[in-house]
Amino acid sequence: MKNMNELIKEISQLESKLHDKDFLLTWEQSPEELERVLKTAQVLKTMRGENIATNVFKNGLGISLFRDNSTRTRFSYASAINMLGLAQQDLDEGKSQIAHGETVRETANMISFCADAIGIRDDMYLGAGNAYMREVGEALDNGVKEGVLPHRPALVNLQCDIDHPTQSMADLAWLEEHFGGLDQLKGKKIAMTWAYSPSYGKPLSVPQGIIGLMSRFGMDVVLAHPEGYDLIPEVVEEAKKNAQESGGSFTPVTSMEEAFKDADIVYPKSWAPYKVMGERTELLRANDHAGLKELEKACLAQNAQHKDWHCTEDMMKLTKGGEALYMHCLPADITGVSCEEGEVEESVFEKYRIATYKEASWKPYIIAAMILNRKYQDVAGVLDDLLNESEKRVK
Amino acid sequence: MKNMNELIKEISQLESKLHDKDFLLTWEQSPEELERVLKTAQVLKTMRGENIATNVFKNGLGISLFRDNSTRTRFSYASAINMLGLAQQDLDEGKSQIAHGETVRETANMISFCADAIGIRDDMYLGAGNAYMREVGEALDNGVKEGVLPHRPALVNLQCDIDHPTQSMADLAWLEEHFGGLDQLKGKKIAMTWAYSPSYGKPLSVPQGIIGLMSRFGMDVVLAHPEGYDLIPEVVEEAKKNAQESGGSFTPVTSMEEAFKDADIVYPKSWAPYKVMGERTELLRANDHAGLKELEKACLAQNAQHKDWHCTEDMMKLTKGGEALYMHCLPADITGVSCEEGEVEESVFEKYRIATYKEASWKPYIIAAMILNRKYQDVAGVLDDLLNESEKRVK
Amino acid sequence: MKNMNELIKEISQLESKLHDKDFLLTWEQSPEELERVLKTAQVLKTMRGENIATNVFKNGLGISLFRDNSTRTRFSYASAINMLGLAQQDLDEGKSQIAHGETVRETANMISFCADAIGIRDDMYLGAGNAYMREVGEALDNGVKEGVLPHRPALVNLQCDIDHPTQSMADLAWLEEHFGGLDQLKGKKIAMTWAYSPSYGKPLSVPQGIIGLMSRFGMDVVLAHPEGYDLIPEVVEEAKKNAQESGGSFTPVTSMEEAFKDADIVYPKSWAPYKVMGERTELLRANDHAGLKELEKACLAQNAQHKDWHCTEDMMKLTKGGEALYMHCLPADITGVSCEEGEVEESVFEKYRIATYKEASWKPYIIAAMILNRKYQDVAGVLDDLLNESEKRVK
Repeated sequence: MKNMNELIKEISQLESKLHDKDFLLTWEQSPEELERVLKTAQVLKTMRGENIATNVFKNGLGISLFRDNSTRTRFSYASAINMLGLAQQDLDEGKSQIAHGETVRETANMISFCADAIGIRDDMYLGAGNAYMREVGEALDNGVKEGVLPHRPALVNLQCDIDHPTQSMADLAWLEEHFGGLDQLKGKKIAMTWAYSPSYGKPLSVPQGIIGLMSRFGMDVVLAHPEGYDLIPEVVEEAKKNAQESGGSFTPVTSMEEAFKDADIVYPKSWAPYKVMGERTELLRANDHAGLKELEKACLAQNAQHKDWHCTEDMMKLTKGGEALYMHCLPADITGVSCEEGEVEESVFEKYRIATYKEASWKPYIIAAMILNRKYQDVAGVLDDLLNESEKRVK
Repeated sequence: MKNMNELIKEISQLESKLHDKDFLLTWEQSPEELERVLKTAQVLKTMRGENIATNVFKNGLGISLFRDNSTRTRFSYASAINMLGLAQQDLDEGKSQIAHGETVRETANMISFCADAIGIRDDMYLGAGNAYMREVGEALDNGVKEGVLPHRPALVNLQCDIDHPTQSMADLAWLEEHFGGLDQLKGKKIAMTWAYSPSYGKPLSVPQGIIGLMSRFGMDVVLAHPEGYDLIPEVVEEAKKNAQESGGSFTPVTSMEEAFKDADIVYPKSWAPYKVMGERTELLRANDHAGLKELEKACLAQNAQHKDWHCTEDMMKLTKGGEALYMHCLPADITGVSCEEGEVEESVFEKYRIATYKEASWKPYIIAAMILNRKYQDVAGVLDDLLNESEKRVK
Repeated sequence: MKNMNELIKEISQLESKLHDKDFLLTWEQSPEELERVLKTAQVLKTMRGENIATNVFKNGLGISLFRDNSTRTRFSYASAINMLGLAQQDLDEGKSQIAHGETVRETANMISFCADAIGIRDDMYLGAGNAYMREVGEALDNGVKEGVLPHRPALVNLQCDIDHPTQSMADLAWLEEHFGGLDQLKGKKIAMTWAYSPSYGKPLSVPQGIIGLMSRFGMDVVLAHPEGYDLIPEVVEEAKKNAQESGGSFTPVTSMEEAFKDADIVYPKSWAPYKVMGERTELLRANDHAGLKELEKACLAQNAQHKDWHCTEDMMKLTKGGEALYMHCLPADITGVSCEEGEVEESVFEKYRIATYKEASWKPYIIAAMILNRKYQDVAGVLDDLLNESEKRVK
């Protein structure tokens, strides 16, 4: 890893408007902006490793709003705001509520009088989560403009219906670490493929986030899934466009074998059928419990037809030298461990277990880096101050 | 707004025994004590605006006990203790429990070994909430006296059956800001009036808090409600007495129109019929769910007879120059927005929306000011230190 | 109490490997290690009393995992991590889950990227709680070894199926305070006795913790319970062995009277029949709700045969001079107060109420002392730094 002074210098040379916009979709950020976040995360992680405190706030709240259960993301967010000096405060609105208009405007302001960051996870409804975040963002802008809020809290997308930018950026940071640099990713083949799981309604945001981000760095991105498991068409278009611009490629295929063939990286993960996710939103809005039960049954039956989408040792042999890097956002559905039949064979997962932990370990730093870049135009200056002071994190 | 040095000097000249008593009812505090809290809140708010850290605690817990759901008050309290340097810890006793005697004494001590503030919201039972807070306060006094507790935590009334002092004081701070000083409130007419809402069991503490506090500053306080929607008689007596002493007036009327006529300020808000609140306490104590259902039905039917208590544009035309300041503790029941028929017309609310947000924005600072004045006799000295150090809140 | 400089010097002279192992059972620690924790707690408590900040962390998370409801322990842990400068983050896995293997390994790492302490309470299942903690500890060790975690979080046993070390050590600190030194405990008779309570399923960890720890200091430990209310045989063996080594004695008896006779200290407290706790674990694992109901009924009936195990004034007269110190981990089941018939008569409890509060007040400091000793080999040096800096906790 580069040393901190080099990284800080590189950050100072990257143009960025991140201080002026929320990080809601990776494809709304320029390559330089993405690099700034990655390098900021690297500096923060290095500082922690060297026992240097990264507190930039003496006080302030970091608010979290989880509309879906979460352990990993919750702890990553809590870690991120804590390392910056903020205190967590959870907004518990009830899970199934879709708020709009007046309520959103008002709540966004009421919770933000002393807030410096707001993290939202809202991935249950196609067409709703990201839109909700933008509504919150506008309410915050308006609150600042009208003199209600003393400053604009940073808004962080902790997973929505479209993207999961803290996950995909953490994945990218891990790939950068693993392969020794962003430039090393050019021409690498990454297989984002569907895999069987006995569970229902997993969001599309991880595969969408991966194809939307990895296509920015000249990689050969292959997307594989059975018929009916499409992603949001606009995101697929985005990935195609990104691949062209970055000098990589984007190839949808319909078999796991084809995707794995000669891959440098494989990311086998289950998600719900696209049509099901759409219907589910309607049923949830209508509060139709019987309908939801029916849908779940149908979905699980549909899944069960594709149990052969299984990341086995034999499948791994198809990859480049039989040694592709296995990735997962965790928890994986491991056959014989967390379920009878799942996404991945136990021996494959075990081989890459520590690798997936390291992948996950980037998330707190990525979230903190997003908040810092939203807060400061001159992030390099702030990091430089922290480094010069080198206050100990632990006595 | 005055500058901070002037405010701090004024604070130092106001006599106060707030360091020696809990702030449980505004009418237990002298005018000078109320002013001290207001000015302290102004200094704290100005400091935040100027990026000056207000941490007076290096560590310590700020405990919260909410016996009723709450988003606004919860965030205000969390913001207040955070800006002082405390960490929040929630005591979740279950909502419907009325604890007494041994349990209160013991719990109060057990949670307070490292506590510097305790905020309680207990507004569900007429005759119980404020009494409970005093029981906690006595247990804490006793704990200090007996050498169990190293110091006395500040107890903050975050809403009880009688008063809602953090709300009414925030409202007063907003009026002071809006009209340019406490002295500007003399002779202003404020109409605290009932308004229709399709909801049930709203506490009486907001209207009681408003008439109990605004009557202290020479205002012409008018209280309006339909028959049967009386407030606690002792509080009404308090308001009368206050008005006489402060050179203002207190006038109960039975029509919204009369209250709005030439008013400078209107505060239209629903609350439950007094008799219903009394019966509800009995039924809750008896755990009589069927009885509670019945009561709710009767109450909603009674409410529905008064749908004409509606803050419309036409009603607003009756006020001074048609331009009275509309106030609300939020959330308001807005007709056609949050309910079919409610307290206020959408166009009226929209005109004053930002004003109500600014009103609410005072609450974190009022709560922090209450805690500081409970903790320190020489609050001016503490604020002066913070100002001299001028440590940045955000790097 | 000795002054802080003396205590710190004594700490520096006590050999300890606590920085290299988790504090999961008191009998796994050497006498010198136990003394170090006691003295560290004394220094921390004195510092708080003298308004000296004890923050050794600028940031970091203190994670809590409570598999059973808890107010006292929750607040003690929150207080402990707060006084060290950590922020609390609760891991809410659902209460009845017994996690194993992959899930434990993964979760332990996922929550620990920025964690400095993890407190676990898991006392519901005989044979499971302590084992779970060791599984977490191994996962953390492995995470550090593999480069996933930047440092090893301190693991604190906040009550398991075998021991309740934060309780027993707080009890010991209180005895040391009350009697004026650890050496004063030699030859004192402590009666750990069962007492009747109308509740079901109380864990065995408090009596086990008491006999396992107090037998280390030359005390005459008497354990009394009705037939069928045995403790885990291995722990009883441990107590016997400890008593021999420390020059004290360990005597199991079958009557409360015999235990109270000439006792210096009495600890009357209910716990569940051993066999019931074993069956309960099986039924919980099998998710057999009907079976659990049956078992509860049988257990309460069995308890009811022993209502004479009651700490009355008459019983207290049997103790040394009628003036033994009454202890309890709280909350006690007080006859006529918290239940119709319980562990202790109201007048007895009332006489010792403040004493039990003081007993409880040690717990936050004991927990913080355990974390410090896990974190630093040279705790004396760290405490010395804090004392020299003498930064004010409250401005």
